[in-house]
This record gives sequence, C-alpha cells and structure tokens, in this order.
Amino acid sequence: PPAWDRAARQPPGFPLAPCRAFSNNKILVELDESSGVATMKLKSPPVNSLSLDLLTEFCISLEKLENDRACRGVILTSAVPKIFSSGLDITEMYGKSPEHYAEFWRAVQEMWLRLYGSNMVTVAAINGSSPAGGCLIALSCDYRIMVENPKFSIGLNEAQLGIVAPFWFKDTFVNVVGHRVAESSLQLGSLHSAPQAHRLGLVDELVPEERLQEKAAAAMAQWLALPDHARQLTKSMMRKAVLDRLVAHREEDLQNFISFISKESIQKSLRMYMEMLKKKK
Amino acid sequence: PPAWDRAARQPPGFPLAPCRAFSNNKILVELDESSGVATMKLKSPPVNSLSLDLLTEFCISLEKLENDRACRGVILTSAVPKIFSSGLDITEMYGKSPEHYAEFWRAVQEMWLRLYGSNMVTVAAINGSSPAGGCLIALSCDYRIMVENPKFSIGLNEAQLGIVAPFWFKDTFVNVVGHRVAESSLQLGSLHSAPQAHRLGLVDELVPEERLQEKAAAAMAQWLALPDHARQLTKSMMRKAVLDRLVAHREEDLQNFISFISKESIQKSLRMYMEMLKKKK
Amino acid sequence: PPAWDRAARQPPGFPLAPCRAFSNNKILVELDESSGVATMKLKSPPVNSLSLDLLTEFCISLEKLENDRACRGVILTSAVPKIFSSGLDITEMYGKSPEHYAEFWRAVQEMWLRLYGSNMVTVAAINGSSPAGGCLIALSCDYRIMVENPKFSIGLNEAQLGIVAPFWFKDTFVNVVGHRVAESSLQLGSLHSAPQAHRLGLVDELVPEERLQEKAAAAMAQWLALPDHARQLTKSMMRKAVLDRLVAHREEDLQNFISFISKESIQKSLRMYMEMLKKKK
Repeated sequence: PPAWDRAARQPPGFPLAPCRAFSNNKILVELDESSGVATMKLKSPPVNSLSLDLLTEFCISLEKLENDRACRGVILTSAVPKIFSSGLDITEMYGKSPEHYAEFWRAVQEMWLRLYGSNMVTVAAINGSSPAGGCLIALSCDYRIMVENPKFSIGLNEAQLGIVAPFWFKDTFVNVVGHRVAESSLQLGSLHSAPQAHRLGLVDELVPEERLQEKAAAAMAQWLALPDHARQLTKSMMRKAVLDRLVAHREEDLQNFISFISKESIQKSLRMYMEMLKKKK
Repeated sequence: PPAWDRAARQPPGFPLAPCRAFSNNKILVELDESSGVATMKLKSPPVNSLSLDLLTEFCISLEKLENDRACRGVILTSAVPKIFSSGLDITEMYGKSPEHYAEFWRAVQEMWLRLYGSNMVTVAAINGSSPAGGCLIALSCDYRIMVENPKFSIGLNEAQLGIVAPFWFKDTFVNVVGHRVAESSLQLGSLHSAPQAHRLGLVDELVPEERLQEKAAAAMAQWLALPDHARQLTKSMMRKAVLDRLVAHREEDLQNFISFISKESIQKSLRMYMEMLKKKK
Repeated sequence: PPAWDRAARQPPGFPLAPCRAFSNNKILVELDESSGVATMKLKSPPVNSLSLDLLTEFCISLEKLENDRACRGVILTSAVPKIFSSGLDITEMYGKSPEHYAEFWRAVQEMWLRLYGSNMVTVAAINGSSPAGGCLIALSCDYRIMVENPKFSIGLNEAQLGIVAPFWFKDTFVNVVGHRVAESSLQLGSLHSAPQAHRLGLVDELVPEERLQEKAAAAMAQWLALPDHARQLTKSMMRKAVLDRLVAHREEDLQNFISFISKESIQKSLRMYMEMLKKKK
C-alpha cells in the first residue's frame, strides 16, 4: 500500500507493480543513517529523461526507502549538469505498441502516487531545468529549492508539444500555484525562469548553485524537527483528495493516454519535436 | 453545442437560444483573416450596459466567430471612452414581468457559458471602468490587460446595490483571485483601481492607454503561438467543473434570479440606485 | 439555527447545546448601540486558553449578539497583554474521561460553526500571539488586523505538539492562505511573525499597537456601510461548503477526536508539553 494510505490507516489502494527487470544504475541512492536523510540523484545522461527503466528504478528505490525505518526524508536532485529532469521520455511514447504505452503510463502514475503520497519528507533540490514530468516531480515534493540561475527554467510545458497535461498533473500544479497561474501556464505551456518561478510560488527558495546541497539539508532538518506521525497525517489530509482522484480514475486515465498518444496527429507532433531536438545537437 | 463541449467531444449541453430579433449595432466586430484575430468592440453609449439586445448580439457574434475557421482569437474592448462595460442593464431588471426577467437572465447565462467556455483565445483589453457584469466579461477571458489609469476601476460590486452575485460569478472570480480576495471583495462590493486590481491578480497587465491595442495584440500572438488543439483541451480541463456547475443548475439559478429580483425590497433598492444615477448626470 | 442557515433560509442545522452552567466572566462583552458594534474581549489570564468554560461563554455571548437586532458587527480582541489566545486548553484534553472529551470537542465545533457562520461582520483585532485555536478564531473572522510587533506570532502549530489540526481548521486555513501555504505551514506547525503573516495574507493589515482599536473600528465601519442582507447572503455563499462539511461529519469528527486524544502516545505528548510549559514559568 502506498504511504499516504498507510498513514491514514486505510485498506491498500493498489499493489506494487509486478517486478520488472530494470537497470539499476540510473539513480544514485545514498542514505545517511545518522540524519535519516536519503539522497536520490538522477543520473541518466544526457537529460535525465523519465524512461520506463528510470521510472521503475525510481518507484522501487522510493519504496525501499519508504519501508526503511532508518529513513525519514529524501532529497531529490540531479547528477547531470544543468538539467534536473527533461520529463517523460518521448521515445517511450513514439511508434510503440498500445501494450508498451500502457506499461509506460502505469509507471508514470505509480511514480506520482508514491512520491506525492510519500510519508517521508521530500525536498526537491532543483539544480537545472525541469520541464514537464521533471516539473511534476518537483511539484510532488514537500519543498522546492532551486538554483537561482535565470537560465534554468521549470514548468508544465506539455501544450508546446501539442499534448495535454493529465488532470492529476494539473491538480498537483493548482495545489502549488493556484488556479489562475496554473490555467495560463498550462495553456501557454510556460517554462518559467528560476526567478519567475520563485515569484509565482512554484519554487519556495532560490539559492546560489554552490549552496544548494547545504540549503536542502537545512530545509530537510527543519521539516524533520517535527514528530513524524502528526506531520504524516497532516500531509495525507492535504493531499488525499487529489491522490484519491487518480486512484479512482486510474484505468480511465490509462485508456485516455493510450488513445490520445496513439493518434496519428499526436505521433506526428512528437516525431517533429524529436527531429527538432536532433537538429539542435 | 458550446465550445468547451466540442473540445471535450461531449454531447451538446444546450442549444443556441431560438433566434430573437435584435439590433445589430451594439458591437463592432472585425476579423483580421491574416492573423486569425477578431476584435469585438462594445459600442452602446453611454456606458455599454449589458441589455438584452446587447447580450443577444454578443452571443450571436461570438458564436459566429467560434464557428469561423478563420478565427482563432477574440479581443474584447470598448468603443465608449472611459468605460469597458457598466454591467447588467438595470432597466431590464426593474418593473418588468417574470417572463422578461427569465428571458434576460437566460441571455446572461448564455453569454457567460459561451465566453468562459470559448475554444478561442479571449483577451480583455480593458480601456475603462468595468463593474459587475463588465468585470464578469473580463474575468471570463483568458488574459486581462487594463489601462493603467487609477481612475478606472474593476470589480464585482453587486453587494453595493443590495444584490448578490450569482454562484457562477463567484466561481469565476475565485478561479482568478483565490478564495480570500474573492470573499472580502464580494462582501464589500469592492471596486479596485487598475493598480490595485493588478496587485490582486484581477488583471494580468497594466499598460498606458495609447499602447493598449498593441499590447493586446502582442499577448494574443503569444497565445496563438500554441497549437489550438492542446490549448483548447487544457482550457476545457481547467474550466469544465465551473461551467458544468451552471449547466447542471441552470433552471434553478434562473428561478432564484426571478424570485430574488421580483422582491419588493430589491425592486426598491434598484429604483433608488437608478434615481441616484439620474441625479449624477 | 446558526446564522448562515438563517441567511440562506434553510431548515435548522443544529440546535444550541443544552444550557450548561458556566462562569460568566471570561469574556467582556460591550455593545455600542449607536454604531451597532459589539466588542468581545477575552479575559482569561494568563493566556486566554480556550477552556470548556470559555468556549461555552463564547458561544452564548455570540448567540446573544446574533439575535440582538441592535448588533451588526463584533470585534474580537484580548484583554490580556501580549496574547490574543493560546488556543485550546490542553488541560481539557489530558487525563479526562471520553465523556469530557466529547463535551469539550462539541463546544469547539460549536464555537467555530457559530463564528465562521455568523451573520454579523466579524473583525479580529489581534493584540498578541495567536497560536492553534487562537489562530482559528482569527481565521474565522471576516477581517484580521494585527499589531505589527514581530514578537507576536500566529499560526496553526498543532503539528509541533504531535497532534493534527482537524479538517475544518484546515479548510478554514486554505480559504484564507491557499493550498500551498496551508500545506507547508500545517506540516511544519509554523508560527508566523506578524510581518510574515501579513505577507502570506494570513492577516489583512498591520498596525501600531496604540492604533489597533481605532483601525478595527474603521474597518468595521467600512464593512457595515454595505446593506446587511446582500452581505450576509454573499458571506454564506462563500462559506457554506466548508460549514456544511463539518455539519455533515460532526459526529465522525467527534469520534475521531476522542479516539485520537485518548491514545497513550498522544496523552504522553501532551503531558511532556505541559511539563515544558511549567518549566518555562
């Protein structure tokens, strides 16, 4: 059962996806047992794309920490310079079978359910750009610290690719920045520079690059000063409605994704986007 | 079917009201086919009151543009100096029959359903004061630019007239400024000066009067840079809950309006207000 | 029937709790009949703890004013230096019988239902620190003015005591500060200094201590300039959903409280907290 269900003493909402073979090297996990703080560093060059492999590893790593009594908090950050995560791996959504799309989308859903519903304190230490699914990961944490570099940007820019952020991306976004900013940012597919993102409340704190880890650890210490049980129940109270909404519509959301992504027009958009990315290199 | 229903591929929610005779001269509509941008200029002196005639013309003009493949966006503005729109025409709500109130209110509902649910990009270029229903029109657009003149004000000031903004005015307002600001502004019937409105997020941008059209066109171009389909589905996702709420309670809302406005005490308030306006002239 | 039900012309939601004996000296009530403004001054040294006695007196005093046609608004303030209210009286929640917990919690619920749903204009003149239940009282008013002293703090800090704010504390908080600020403040049990609270929108206005009563009266006059009926219906429209939620789950909320507070671990937390307070003296 996911963490937010356990905290609320509810029956299990969904089982861990059956074990898949996965590469175990896209995320560096370190647990400091003295502080109870783990660091999960995404290391999947060149841009930390959220591939099926990475998502699977993410879920399993997070679940292991969740079940480890020595671990009370997780700092999420990137081991790749200038990028936190570029978001969902487009190659997983292009030219594949419906079965593949289904497997991929289940992994995306599961990643979010586990992270947004985590009982642990989660801090995003955003040391690079963080579009789309990368932004979702940051939005799902309890606290967001970003390097103050104005060249780094963050946002749910799906609309720029001709695709639509799912309702639970939107719900998570609205919970952080409110309805008006979410509405215009989602329609425009806005990528906000770090200073803009700070003004909008999309990130909580800006810091110089060299102080990011120190500041993330300080924020984590502040959150860990609270008794776990009350903090977890409070977090669950704040997030349960939005988590429950995906759990209740998970299969429908999956079918929507498969039929949307399988459309010729969408496949064409994605191909054009990938070709544009190739030319940039 | 209204635009937001078409985008979401749903069965029609309500039919266009049966054709009424209406004056076709209260709104100037121009479509620039090269940019795909139409301008709807309210021109009903002295204050662009939203009369039954104007509302009917508004709905039909908007529907024509909605169905015109050459049109992707609409800029709403005023051809009357110093006023965007003074809101619902009080003479339509005073001393008339229940049948008249019903016809009028249906037109108000329809105007909002079409505008808030429009598939087109909608930009309000607010070149004057915009109380009550005038504010609702602005709130229903995707983006609001206002002339920076502090003498121009905007707000849902219904409470000052002794009447209550309907729940869907309130829902639209909360989506833009959040619950706290909406609650106090609605209770106080606040009219916010342009600079105040900007601070509250009630308008997105302030500009000098002479640059309003240029800046509205620039904002429109930014919104039109996005692929229509993804933008429309995103807009629908953000606004559907609030639109559906009126659709589900449309008849009840109508009966509420008729019985409220027919009360002697309310009729008396409106008469006093109209007399005060006459003395001002 | 509570005020918000009367305004909305609905059947009674709940009866006034059967009369209990209560000390009638913890709240000073003065009504200025010329202005229609009452002042309720909490005077229960040393820290205005919300004991069963004080809550009972609060409900009865508020109900009397609510039913007094001469009274249109209430200013809530403290007669104790440096403290508005320290929140729920911990001694009512420690080492008592389930029957006592039930009686106490019903009084807390009733206080909030009456205050948040009051037909009168309610202004909190916050002249000292205001943690937990003290903050709830302030949040339930229409307008919050606080002395600008940065040593005074306000917030729902329940998590710091190892307890969890009930859902209707949370709903009231979200309505004022939005989801993001509520989520982190509740998880961290944050007490915000007056200037911070102002920046977050948790209080509407900061004033020098010597001008607090004058400014509270000025704010009240502004709110009373509006016709009562429209203002009351508007307030009810804004708050009804959150009020109804507690009314619908009142018994469940009561049982949750009793079983939570009766836990050995929670009783231990409270004992430790009380011992810490004693040492401070």
